Amino acid sequence: MTQNIYDSEEFFAGYARLPRSVEGLAGAPEWPALRRLLPELRGRNVLDLGCGYGWFCRWAREQGAAEVLGIDVSEKMLARARADTSDKAITYRWADMESLALPGDAFHLVYSSLALHYVENLSRLMAEVYGSLVRGGSLVFSAEHPIYTAPAEPKWSLDAKGHKIWPVDHYLDEGPRSTDWLAPGVIKQHRTLATYINLLLRSGFAIAHLEEWGPSEAQIRAQPSLAAERHRPPFLIVAAKKP
Amino acid sequence: MTQNIYDSEEFFAGYARLPRSVEGLAGAPEWPALRRLLPELRGRNVLDLGCGYGWFCRWAREQGAAEVLGIDVSEKMLARARADTSDKAITYRWADMESLALPGDAFHLVYSSLALHYVENLSRLMAEVYGSLVRGGSLVFSAEHPIYTAPAEPKWSLDAKGHKIWPVDHYLDEGPRSTDWLAPGVIKQHRTLATYINLLLRSGFAIAHLEEWGPSEAQIRAQPSLAAERHRPPFLIVAAKKP
Repeated sequence: MTQNIYDSEEFFAGYARLPRSVEGLAGAPEWPALRRLLPELRGRNVLDLGCGYGWFCRWAREQGAAEVLGIDVSEKMLARARADTSDKAITYRWADMESLALPGDAFHLVYSSLALHYVENLSRLMAEVYGSLVRGGSLVFSAEHPIYTAPAEPKWSLDAKGHKIWPVDHYLDEGPRSTDWLAPGVIKQHRTLATYINLLLRSGFAIAHLEEWGPSEAQIRAQPSLAAERHRPPFLIVAAKKP
Repeated sequence: MTQNIYDSEEFFAGYARLPRSVEGLAGAPEWPALRRLLPELRGRNVLDLGCGYGWFCRWAREQGAAEVLGIDVSEKMLARARADTSDKAITYRWADMESLALPGDAFHLVYSSLALHYVENLSRLMAEVYGSLVRGGSLVFSAEHPIYTAPAEPKWSLDAKGHKIWPVDHYLDEGPRSTDWLAPGVIKQHRTLATYINLLLRSGFAIAHLEEWGPSEAQIRAQPSLAAERHRPPFLIVAAKKP
């Protein structure tokens, strides 16, 4: 199964202090870009893969979604999601995305925020997701961008002239990357952008939109520390449709 | 119009010595990947945007293509293409891709090799290409990869441990990049991978395949100097369809 780093004390404590954990969706600078790609949710059934604290599940219900299922591999995240939710139309379920089985023709939207780069067998999962969507249904997800996950040393560096650069290497060599983020030895799966796209196409999806997310000028004015992110996109956002 | 660097003496002389100029398609290591994405050409009409010496136009005829039109902005390239071709079904035409007008419903395949990263108004050109394709027709092109075109200093560098890295910066800032390749001051248009894809989607294309090309193990064994290209893909290859 996928490494469940979220249940390590150290990681969980660090994660709980991130703006996106404290403020929810509004604390995630890529949220406006993700939100723009979502279909109308009123009366629709929604699945959130890697639901964490359940922020998106609750938001989907505020938009009028009929039923929302949130799935996560972290017992700690699910415990907090359940504690923070009083809505019978939201269900949280523990599952490992490597072996997840989903009902067929069940959802109008499958959503996932920054979770799929932990999944080893993404091809299997996307076939499962495809089957779980109704015709015309949408898949909208974010993941860490391949330029971000590729490097052996994923840290800003300076070139000979003292300019900030992101040192890309091994981009085409897909597989696990061990990084120290909130806790040592967090395992992510690096795959190229082409692999993400071709894997969706092979599952039957039509690509609807691709975004290599970086902060807008307004976001940089409000939070100047975001400026460097324009040198290389931290996140990939994909919208796809089941034709 | 697009900078026509190919007609500068210095650039043209340097270009003429590249393996892909001397050996044709077999001298381009990405050719097998491009070729795999091409539709059946027998009896079909083909357009090559940026045909250069005409290697692809002649190859398309060998595959049984009915009519082939090669377009280029370089008079020198066209002169050599015409000198090297004795086939009435191949036409070479001078045109600037910024203002190119194409007949409607005319081609089954529009092909382009390493030319579109010179085009400023790619959105206009893709709309024109879309209109020129028959329903079910294919667009297959290669371009310099955005990771390759992004950097202010597009040169291999070494990190603190002495490992080769590709220094990415300004990835999200699209626009011209001036580089010294065969001649000083060659202007290329940097655009993100997402922009390439979304621009095709907005023109009406369906994405069929995306490839971030790098050398295979067999290619590296035959030509060890290619190995570094696996650190970051030099080329982007896209196959799209007019539904």
